[in-house]
Amino acid sequence: MSADATLTGVGVGPGDPELLTVKAVRLLREADLVFVPVMADRIAPTATAGPTPAGADGRAEATVREYVAADRLRRLPFALDDRGGVTARRAAAWDDAARVVVEAIDAGARSLAFATIGDPNVYSTFGYLAQSVRALRPAVRVATVPGVTAMQELAARSGTPLCEGREPLTLLPATAGLALFADALAGPGTVVAYKGWRRHPELLAELRRQGRLADAVLGRSLGLPGERIGPVDDTEHELPYLSTLLVPARREHRGGKL
Amino acid sequence: MSADATLTGVGVGPGDPELLTVKAVRLLREADLVFVPVMADRIAPTATAGPTPAGADGRAEATVREYVAADRLRRLPFALDDRGGVTARRAAAWDDAARVVVEAIDAGARSLAFATIGDPNVYSTFGYLAQSVRALRPAVRVATVPGVTAMQELAARSGTPLCEGREPLTLLPATAGLALFADALAGPGTVVAYKGWRRHPELLAELRRQGRLADAVLGRSLGLPGERIGPVDDTEHELPYLSTLLVPARREHRGGKL
Repeated sequence: MSADATLTGVGVGPGDPELLTVKAVRLLREADLVFVPVMADRIAPTATAGPTPAGADGRAEATVREYVAADRLRRLPFALDDRGGVTARRAAAWDDAARVVVEAIDAGARSLAFATIGDPNVYSTFGYLAQSVRALRPAVRVATVPGVTAMQELAARSGTPLCEGREPLTLLPATAGLALFADALAGPGTVVAYKGWRRHPELLAELRRQGRLADAVLGRSLGLPGERIGPVDDTEHELPYLSTLLVPARREHRGGKL
Repeated sequence: MSADATLTGVGVGPGDPELLTVKAVRLLREADLVFVPVMADRIAPTATAGPTPAGADGRAEATVREYVAADRLRRLPFALDDRGGVTARRAAAWDDAARVVVEAIDAGARSLAFATIGDPNVYSTFGYLAQSVRALRPAVRVATVPGVTAMQELAARSGTPLCEGREPLTLLPATAGLALFADALAGPGTVVAYKGWRRHPELLAELRRQGRLADAVLGRSLGLPGERIGPVDDTEHELPYLSTLLVPARREHRGGKL
């Protein structure tokens, strides 16, 4: 019976094992099984000479390792691309992953956690996995535990408030298209772009066009070996896959960069 | 000497003591003093018959109580309004608070934490406090520790992903003006509005105008006694001060509400 099984998407934060919540740690420790995503099948970015997203592989696993004994840890292969859409290939990977989860439930596991970098409700694969599991076993309970996002960690580490007073905050993947990025940048708030990577040159060009290059803060490989946080380097054209670009609101008053 | 003193803005999450990060708990436990904001001087919302924001008072304190002994806890009075601007009155309150912090530093405190609900870089008073402290004691080191925001907790508790695939996410205070809310709502992403309160009727009207009322999720008094999470009630015109309105992106594919 799957009626009393719960699958919980646990946000494990940006990569620092100290940035998990107390609740996330408890759930990871109590779970019968903890699944972590691994990229089994990268859809190769053939159009770029940039580095492959190797650093992203095993990141959730590295983050939870001190909280979860190896015998309760299970790797789930996922297909990842940077186009953001729901491709047949990605959907097939979720379905395969869902079958692994369902087998564990059928074998008796009752509390199952899926560790996801950042927050399970912010650009996570967890929602897709959960729906695939539910399609196979509708009675499985699904829950999520929020986690600190890379955007928040970049703000903290760089001393750059994300939003103050009446400022809006827009978070978008570079895959959303340059027009959305340009519109948000022209507005009154802070703009954060994820997954710049292949699109870094066009994001840079837009920052330059709107006179915002000097304000921008870039986090490269946050939470990974080789992490770098600092201003945008105008001559840098190759970014790691996991990069976060933060362009703070124009601030006239007190507040702003600490 | 203040050169070796550190003031850390510690995000304590949306109100559940289990939603602090491991790092936040450690810093709160290690700090010489932990400051919590209290609203000493509310700028009264005379134009509305809605409830006063009493529930917000002491929220950070309630959240950290189990981690901080009373003899290390200090209350800092802040002035709060819902207009979001930097008024002379609010600036004076930060300066008063900064003087209290500076007195503690001058008396020998070296690690000082300021507990702030949510994240210290997301609509927090911490940035202003830190700048006021720096104005008086430029050598004081300032740092922040990120925390889970109310938006993330509402997403988790209601089973509503904030963003998937290529969707942008816009967070704004209702004080930012109806035009920004309407524009964001017309776009392809999720919109989250904080501090609806006095402006709830006009937000509702806009949701209705754009045919999004049925999609919206409202969190009332998240993390407080009397918390309620659910659909927007078209007939409800008085909201608690701490309310969060989540309007998910229109989703055609798999994903969406769990």
